[in-house]
Amino acid sequence: MEKELKRFDVAQLAHVEIFTPRPDETLWFFKDLLGMTETAREGQSVYLRSYEDFYHHSLKVTERNEPGLGHVSWRASSKAALERRVLDLQKSGYGKNWIEGDLGHGEAFQFVTPDNHQMEILFDLDYYQAPDSEKTVLNNRPQKRPNKGIPVRRIDHVNLLSSDVTVNKNFMADELGFRLREHVVRKDGSEIGAWQSVSPLVHELAFMADQGTAEKGLGRLHHVAFWYGFPQHLHDLSELLTENDIPIEAGPLKHGVSQAMCMYVMEPGGNRIELFGDSGYLIFDPDWKPVTWSEEETEKAIIFYGAPLPDSYFKYGTPSVSSLVGKK
Amino acid sequence: MEKELKRFDVAQLAHVEIFTPRPDETLWFFKDLLGMTETAREGQSVYLRSYEDFYHHSLKVTERNEPGLGHVSWRASSKAALERRVLDLQKSGYGKNWIEGDLGHGEAFQFVTPDNHQMEILFDLDYYQAPDSEKTVLNNRPQKRPNKGIPVRRIDHVNLLSSDVTVNKNFMADELGFRLREHVVRKDGSEIGAWQSVSPLVHELAFMADQGTAEKGLGRLHHVAFWYGFPQHLHDLSELLTENDIPIEAGPLKHGVSQAMCMYVMEPGGNRIELFGDSGYLIFDPDWKPVTWSEEETEKAIIFYGAPLPDSYFKYGTPSVSSLVGKK
Amino acid sequence: MEKELKRFDVAQLAHVEIFTPRPDETLWFFKDLLGMTETAREGQSVYLRSYEDFYHHSLKVTERNEPGLGHVSWRASSKAALERRVLDLQKSGYGKNWIEGDLGHGEAFQFVTPDNHQMEILFDLDYYQAPDSEKTVLNNRPQKRPNKGIPVRRIDHVNLLSSDVTVNKNFMADELGFRLREHVVRKDGSEIGAWQSVSPLVHELAFMADQGTAEKGLGRLHHVAFWYGFPQHLHDLSELLTENDIPIEAGPLKHGVSQAMCMYVMEPGGNRIELFGDSGYLIFDPDWKPVTWSEEETEKAIIFYGAPLPDSYFKYGTPSVSSLVGKK
Amino acid sequence: MEKELKRFDVAQLAHVEIFTPRPDETLWFFKDLLGMTETAREGQSVYLRSYEDFYHHSLKVTERNEPGLGHVSWRASSKAALERRVLDLQKSGYGKNWIEGDLGHGEAFQFVTPDNHQMEILFDLDYYQAPDSEKTVLNNRPQKRPNKGIPVRRIDHVNLLSSDVTVNKNFMADELGFRLREHVVRKDGSEIGAWQSVSPLVHELAFMADQGTAEKGLGRLHHVAFWYGFPQHLHDLSELLTENDIPIEAGPLKHGVSQAMCMYVMEPGGNRIELFGDSGYLIFDPDWKPVTWSEEETEKAIIFYGAPLPDSYFKYGTPSVSSLVGKK
Repeated sequence: MEKELKRFDVAQLAHVEIFTPRPDETLWFFKDLLGMTETAREGQSVYLRSYEDFYHHSLKVTERNEPGLGHVSWRASSKAALERRVLDLQKSGYGKNWIEGDLGHGEAFQFVTPDNHQMEILFDLDYYQAPDSEKTVLNNRPQKRPNKGIPVRRIDHVNLLSSDVTVNKNFMADELGFRLREHVVRKDGSEIGAWQSVSPLVHELAFMADQGTAEKGLGRLHHVAFWYGFPQHLHDLSELLTENDIPIEAGPLKHGVSQAMCMYVMEPGGNRIELFGDSGYLIFDPDWKPVTWSEEETEKAIIFYGAPLPDSYFKYGTPSVSSLVGKK
Repeated sequence: MEKELKRFDVAQLAHVEIFTPRPDETLWFFKDLLGMTETAREGQSVYLRSYEDFYHHSLKVTERNEPGLGHVSWRASSKAALERRVLDLQKSGYGKNWIEGDLGHGEAFQFVTPDNHQMEILFDLDYYQAPDSEKTVLNNRPQKRPNKGIPVRRIDHVNLLSSDVTVNKNFMADELGFRLREHVVRKDGSEIGAWQSVSPLVHELAFMADQGTAEKGLGRLHHVAFWYGFPQHLHDLSELLTENDIPIEAGPLKHGVSQAMCMYVMEPGGNRIELFGDSGYLIFDPDWKPVTWSEEETEKAIIFYGAPLPDSYFKYGTPSVSSLVGKK
Repeated sequence: MEKELKRFDVAQLAHVEIFTPRPDETLWFFKDLLGMTETAREGQSVYLRSYEDFYHHSLKVTERNEPGLGHVSWRASSKAALERRVLDLQKSGYGKNWIEGDLGHGEAFQFVTPDNHQMEILFDLDYYQAPDSEKTVLNNRPQKRPNKGIPVRRIDHVNLLSSDVTVNKNFMADELGFRLREHVVRKDGSEIGAWQSVSPLVHELAFMADQGTAEKGLGRLHHVAFWYGFPQHLHDLSELLTENDIPIEAGPLKHGVSQAMCMYVMEPGGNRIELFGDSGYLIFDPDWKPVTWSEEETEKAIIFYGAPLPDSYFKYGTPSVSSLVGKK
Repeated sequence: MEKELKRFDVAQLAHVEIFTPRPDETLWFFKDLLGMTETAREGQSVYLRSYEDFYHHSLKVTERNEPGLGHVSWRASSKAALERRVLDLQKSGYGKNWIEGDLGHGEAFQFVTPDNHQMEILFDLDYYQAPDSEKTVLNNRPQKRPNKGIPVRRIDHVNLLSSDVTVNKNFMADELGFRLREHVVRKDGSEIGAWQSVSPLVHELAFMADQGTAEKGLGRLHHVAFWYGFPQHLHDLSELLTENDIPIEAGPLKHGVSQAMCMYVMEPGGNRIELFGDSGYLIFDPDWKPVTWSEEETEKAIIFYGAPLPDSYFKYGTPSVSSLVGKK
C-alpha cells in the first residue's frame, strides 16, 4: 500500500521563491500589473499571493545579484505523507535537512534535484486571512477580487531547465510520486521535455533540456506560471504590458502540450513568467499513458496554433548563462 | 493506511446513463447541438462521448417511458482500490452485485445511494480509438474537434435530487471517500445542498434537497453537466439553442458555489443538462475545510452574479413528480 | 440635396450630462469601477471620459437633489450641417437658444424633445490631450489603457423614457435626420420602443414608453451606455460590482434588438448605466427598412437569450416618479 | 453641397469576387469551415454569403487558372449618389462602362483603380430571403445561425497590393469620397499603407505597398476579410483550421492599426483571407485627422501585441508573382 500511496503523497505546488536584482520593479510588476497582494516583508524578501491562493503566500521575491530560482515548495497530502517522502528523499542522497519554517509555514524538509534545483516539502502552513477591506462576498474565495492590474488567480506550475531531463524527471517520480503526463522524446530516446503532475493538471512541474548551456547542476529556472480562468485576460494583460513597456516574449498562443492558452513575459528582474488563460485539458484517468511527442513533433507540441517561439525561449533561463561564467 | 487510501480510491466520473422517452430528439440534441459522437448502439441504448472524453462513452442514452437517471458510473483508481470499495459497499447494505460489463467496459459492481440513485464502480474500460476520418493533430486529444454544434469537451459532474442530503452525502463519503467541498446548511443543521469531489474539481457529484417531493427513494436526477473550456461557448450554444427552439432554463450565469460559468437546458427527452463554461476554481489543498453557506446565503451560493433562478430549478427533476404518482 | 444631406448632418453622440445627489459615490463608480478619467471640475460639475473617447469629456456629472438627465449633446458633421439643423430646430418650435459653450466645447444650440429631454447640438469641441503619464504606444488611441477598474472604452448611446415614443422619434427624424433602425409596435400601431441612429450603430438614441408614469414632459432618463469591445469585460465588471455592493439590475445578457451583449447597473446616484460588451450587429445598408417587433415579440426583442428583465427595468427611470410627485 | 455629399456617397462594401484554381476546395473552406451559405451557381461562379450579410451574396467565387481578385463592388448611398459618383469616375479616365447586372444585383458601373484593381459601384441589389429551414427567431437577422464551421457574420473589408499607395488612395478619395483613417508613411513622404473608410469602421479598403513586385497595374489582392463579433471565434477557427490542415499565416493577434483582433489564413485556392474577432475601434468624429505611423513605427502599427508577421505577409499576394512572369 505504501507504493500505492506514493503517487498521492504530494498534493500541490505551495509556493516558489525567485531572486531579483531589481526588487522594486519586480514588485511593481507582480503587484501593479498582475494584481498580486503583498502579505509580508522580512529581510531581503517580500511575500506575495494571488487573490485565489489560499495560503500566506505563493510567491516569495528575494533580492539577489542575479535573477533565478530561490526554491520550489511542495505541500504533502498529510503529515504521514510528508514523513514517507522525507524517508525516501533521505535515502536518495538528494535530501538536505529540516528547517524550522519561514514566514507563512512550519517545518519543511529541503532537498535538491539532480540538477541542483532547490526544493522543499512541507505540510503545515498558514492560511491567508483577509483584512476587512479585502473581505469578499464569496465564502469560497479568500480575498476580494483586486481592482488593479489584470489580477492572476493562483499559482499554477514551475518549469525548470536541466542538463538531463530524464534524470530529473525520474527523481521526481521515484522519490515524490510525480506522474509523467506528456514528454517530447528524441530518436535516441533522450527527452527534450517532460511534464509531470500530482493532480489532474497536466503539470505542476516541467523539465526542459537546457539549450543555453550543457553544464550540469545549474538549477536554472525557465519560468513560473500563474493562472487566469479566462482567455481574455491574456489579451488584457498584453495590452497593459505593452502600454507599460514590459516585453512579451511569446503569445498569447495555444500550446499543444496541455492545450492551454498562454503567454510568456519577462518580469523586470529578468525571470520569465508564464500566464495561463484557461485550465487546458485535465487528466482524471488513473491509468494515464504518457503522451509522447517525437522530435519532429516538437513544434506542434509547443504550439498548437500561433507563431513559432523565438530562439530565446529555448536558450534563455535564469540565472543567465553569461552571469554564470567563471562563477561556479 | 487503508483509511488514508480511501479518499483516493475513486478517481473520476466515468459515464452517466439517462432515460428518454424521445430518443431521436435526445440524440439530435447531444449530437447536432452539443457535437457529441456516437460510438455504438445496442438494444434501446446509444453510446455517446465528448471529443475529449478518452473512453468508449461518457453518456449512455436509453429509451424508456419516462426521462430520468439510468445509472452513474465511477472509475476506481486501481483494481485494488476497486476491491477495497466493493468490500465497504457490501458491508454498507447498499451494495447490489457484480455485472460482467457493458459495451465499453468490463466488470462493474452495482450499488444504490440511500435515496436509490443507481450507481456502479469499475476499473476496466475501453479507450476510444478514432477512425482515420476523426484523427487529430494533437497527441493528447482522442479525436479531432467536431465540426457541428458547439462541441462539449468532456463530461463534468452529476447532480442528484434527494430526500435527505446529509444521509446521501455521508454514504458517498464513508463508502467511497468523496470529500465535501461546499454545502448550504439550514439553521437546524440540515443541508440544502452538498458538493463533493474526488479530485481538485469542486464537484463530480452534488446532492440537492428535492423541493418537488418529500418522498424518499426516488433516485431523481437534477442534471448531468458537460464541460467547455471557454465561456464564449455558452453564448454560442445559447444562440444555437434559441435558434432551434430548445428552452434555456437559466444562464449563462456564474455560480457562487464552484465559481463556474454555466447554463441549464432541457434536452428534448426532459432531462436537465448543465453546461460549464470554464473550470471554476480548483481545490488542491489536501486539508480543505468545507465551505459553508447559510440558508440566507443560498442565493449568493447559487448565483454569484446573474438573474435569480426560476422556481423550476428547485422543483423539477426527472422522472417528474407527476409521472411518479401512483407508480411506486 | 439638402434633404439628402439631412440624414448625414448629425455625426455622433458627443457627451451626456447626468445629475446625482451623491457626487462622491457617483464619481467613485465611474472612476474606480469603470476606469474613467477626470479631465476637469467646475462649480458643481466634474467632467469625465473613457480612455478611447477622443474629446475633452463624454460624461458630465453634476450635483443636484435628484438623479436624472442633464442634457444630451450631439455633434454635427460640419459647421454647415450644424447651421442647417439649427434652422430646422428653430422652425420646429423646440429650439431654445445658442450658448457660448462649456468646458471642452464651443458654442452649442440648445433644444428639447417633445417630452422635454434637454439636448444640444454643436460642432466645435476640444480634443483630449493626454499628459505624459497617460501617453500610449498607440497612435490611434488618445490615452493609455487605465490600470484600475474594468475600463470602458467609449460612450455608446442614451435611452430616454417618454410619454409618446412616436412623437419623440419623429421629432429626431424630422429635425435631425435620425434613422429608425428597430421598433416594437403595439397592435394599435403605437410604439413601445424605437431605436434610432445616425451611423452604422443600431442606435445612439432610443425612446421607450414610460411605464412608470403617463405624465408628459418629464424628460426622464432610462440609461446611458458605455462600450467595451469584449464580452468578458461584462463578466469582470459583474464580479467587481458584486464585490463592491453595486446592484446589477440585469445581465450580462444578449439583446434581440441590436444583438449586443449587455448589462444594466445602478450607479450610486440612482441613474441606470448600461454596459455594452460588443458592437452588436452594424447597419451599413443605406436603404435599411426598420425592423419591426410586434407586442408579442417584445420579450425576444429585449432578450435574445437570458433571464427575463425585472419589473424595475420597465418602470424605473430618473428622476424617479416618487421624487416628481407634487413638484411639477 | 455636392462636395459635402461626396463623402457620404459610397455606403458600403457590397461584395467581392475572387478567382480560384481549386473551386471545390475553396468552397469547402468557405462553406464548411467559415460556415457560409451558397445562394446560387452560374457558369464558373458560386455565390456565397455570411449569415448576417443582408444581400444575395457577399462573396463570388469564380474558377480561373490563377487565384486573384475578380472585382470589388461598392454600394452607393442612393441612386442620386450613384449617378454623382459615375460622373466623376467617367471624368477621371478610370471609368469603364455600365453592365446590366449580375445574379443578385442590378446595373453597375465598372471602373479600375490606377493599379488596375477591378471595381464596380451600384445601388440596386437583391435582399437574401431565407428558406423556411433557415428562418431565424431574430427579426433583425436575415438567417438562422449556421450549425457548421465557425460561422462568420459578415464581410468586412478588402486589402489591395499596389505599386503606389498614394496614387490609389487619392483616386478612391477624390472620385468616391473615401476618407483616410490611418497610414504608414516613409521618411520621404511616400506611403507604405493606407486605410480608408466610408463609415465608422477604420477601413473597408486598404492599399499596401507591394513588396513582392514593383510592377504596376497588376491589381493584386492582399486579402478579403470577414467579421466575427467575438474574439473566441478566432481561437475556435484556429483549432478547426489546424485540425483540417489549412495553414494559418499569422495570428490570432491584435493590430495597432484599427486595434482589431485578427488572423490570416490561406484558403485552398491560394487567396489570403483575414478574420476579424471584434470591431476594433470605431471612428465617429466627422473631423477625423488621419493617424500617421512613421516607418519606424510600422511594426507597432501592424502588431499591437503578438509575434512579428512572417515575410510572406509583406510579399505574397494573388495572383502570385511567379504566375505573372511572362504573362502580361
